[in-house]
Amino acid sequence: MLILADGRFSVLDAKTATCVIRYRGEEVVAVLDRQTAGRTAGEVVGVGGSIPVVGTLDEGLALAPDMLLVGVAPRGGRLPEAWREMILGALARGLEVVSGLHTFIGDDAELAQAAAAGGGTIRDLRRVPDDLPVASGLAADVGATVVLTVGSDCNVGKMTAAMEVVLAARRRGRRAAFAPTGQTGLLLGGWGLAVDRVIADFVAGAAERIVLRNAPGAELVVVEGQGSIFHPGYSGVTLGLLHGSMPDALILVHQPTRERSLNDGVPIPRLPELVRAYEALAAPLKPARVVAIAINGYDLADAAARDWARRAEDETGLPAVDPVRFGAEALLEPLVALRKGTPTWTPFAPGHNGGQP
Amino acid sequence: MLILADGRFSVLDAKTATCVIRYRGEEVVAVLDRQTAGRTAGEVVGVGGSIPVVGTLDEGLALAPDMLLVGVAPRGGRLPEAWREMILGALARGLEVVSGLHTFIGDDAELAQAAAAGGGTIRDLRRVPDDLPVASGLAADVGATVVLTVGSDCNVGKMTAAMEVVLAARRRGRRAAFAPTGQTGLLLGGWGLAVDRVIADFVAGAAERIVLRNAPGAELVVVEGQGSIFHPGYSGVTLGLLHGSMPDALILVHQPTRERSLNDGVPIPRLPELVRAYEALAAPLKPARVVAIAINGYDLADAAARDWARRAEDETGLPAVDPVRFGAEALLEPLVALRKGTPTWTPFAPGHNGGQP
Repeated sequence: MLILADGRFSVLDAKTATCVIRYRGEEVVAVLDRQTAGRTAGEVVGVGGSIPVVGTLDEGLALAPDMLLVGVAPRGGRLPEAWREMILGALARGLEVVSGLHTFIGDDAELAQAAAAGGGTIRDLRRVPDDLPVASGLAADVGATVVLTVGSDCNVGKMTAAMEVVLAARRRGRRAAFAPTGQTGLLLGGWGLAVDRVIADFVAGAAERIVLRNAPGAELVVVEGQGSIFHPGYSGVTLGLLHGSMPDALILVHQPTRERSLNDGVPIPRLPELVRAYEALAAPLKPARVVAIAINGYDLADAAARDWARRAEDETGLPAVDPVRFGAEALLEPLVALRKGTPTWTPFAPGHNGGQP
Repeated sequence: MLILADGRFSVLDAKTATCVIRYRGEEVVAVLDRQTAGRTAGEVVGVGGSIPVVGTLDEGLALAPDMLLVGVAPRGGRLPEAWREMILGALARGLEVVSGLHTFIGDDAELAQAAAAGGGTIRDLRRVPDDLPVASGLAADVGATVVLTVGSDCNVGKMTAAMEVVLAARRRGRRAAFAPTGQTGLLLGGWGLAVDRVIADFVAGAAERIVLRNAPGAELVVVEGQGSIFHPGYSGVTLGLLHGSMPDALILVHQPTRERSLNDGVPIPRLPELVRAYEALAAPLKPARVVAIAINGYDLADAAARDWARRAEDETGLPAVDPVRFGAEALLEPLVALRKGTPTWTPFAPGHNGGQP
């Protein structure tokens, strides 16, 4: 695949690109970005080694990709006109264009026509089904242990932490399912839905469906979290996900050097306050403890990442580690030790929980 | 108007119908419901006095309405086939059909065709614009005092409490705006949006826009709340509304005889726990205190409603009253006393708060 990250190829701006390079790097032929063209992915975002960054579509096409991935999300999720030409070019050459943007490129008449004319196809990752239910507590009943990653902010590494826990569990021979809830996660495997695209009344219902689909045959279902309960834009999605997925345990993901919510926002509460808040919100529906802290140390040296993890352990009394740098064993350990409890409350009868809020 | 509430005309099932009868009763010619036909609205739902309940569309049309209001929401918001015939009949006679259902009846080919043929029109209250922003904290900056009603459960009287506070403030000569967030509220006035219909990432942005539109010229903006932070289906909408509307104060609405979340759900936490939870969720973004408790005593005698209010006061130390029965003065008093403070945090720059959660 060729990854379009034009003008925004960096760790913070190109979350999708960076994660796909990290977990599916062997399939990436190049990154398309005029700003960093001539360098390598390894130099620019610290993963992907010698994967080249190219400055024109033609250079990318010369490497014979069969997919163009729109690997950066513009603010608000809408397609900048500047990228349109590149997508048109890829469709004209018969590529599959995969997009996680809020605006469905498949609904764009010009792009759809270019696909039809050139033999290309369009896949909009955020397109969700229109038959989602209002949540009714069914996810509490699955046999698998369900874990949700929650965050101290948006864009803080919840998907990566979830993925690392899944990979660590599989290395131990555990049947672990990754349950994606966002456009990037959907590129990494598992059955999922872009929950931020769901109509608000059905967010928890979407989370419920994601757990129910991933649970059969799994010992552990690790649900990718979204946003933060204290992020003014996205807190509703976060809480819907928490209440719909009915986790048995939570992993709190934190970037220690970030003191304010992205960008220039409110001060991020301290870790113990975050632990209390998430647990308090879960408790009345289904108690779930935060069992570990995942440290996002992308901007730190090894020693500093270890120091911050130790400080998080001191503050919370929970195991803490940067899973990308030092492995997710310390996050997995308390999950393996967890005994799946009997439900502590009676789930709603399906389809029977009130017509409207 | 003629109100369609077929098969579900009761206080709990027909929230829209009951509220429209309460606040716009002089415009209602009849209610259409085969189950309670022959009785009066006053007998069935306790408001509306002698407004008749009729059992057929023809009886209703004989009273010369110019609007058919779909006044009950089926579970999940979708249109039962049984009501289709009645709506078709109204459209064929040239009526405006107003619907708050999740499924837009204007998108239904058969109904749209009937409207075109018969001269009727269709208005879908839940239809929302597609240019809503991600919230950026702007609602914290308005000059008006902003109040949000929050609940101990869904369908508990948040809209009614908001409306009663607005009416009480206006009786005192205050410039009070009612800010609706649901399909029923939209029928009662003010500029609003059905926030539960908004794509999840934009719920808080919708709440922000509602406050910004209602604030100019108002001393008090009373925002209709939705759901409950402990309702598994709707908690995400509730939190998005709290964080997007940036209220200065909260009014907690509670039905004392309801011990479990609708229906057969989880135990509802005690009032002090609810007060703490709502205040804790607001605090990191913009501190807001619960200043009063609104008691929903629809199923109680006067003395019992007073007793429950007194008990709520004892438990929380806050004024409590059933506003429908005894007026909303006790809810209004702490709002009038409130001094609009300076913002305690720096709102995000508009359009600058991160591309994705």
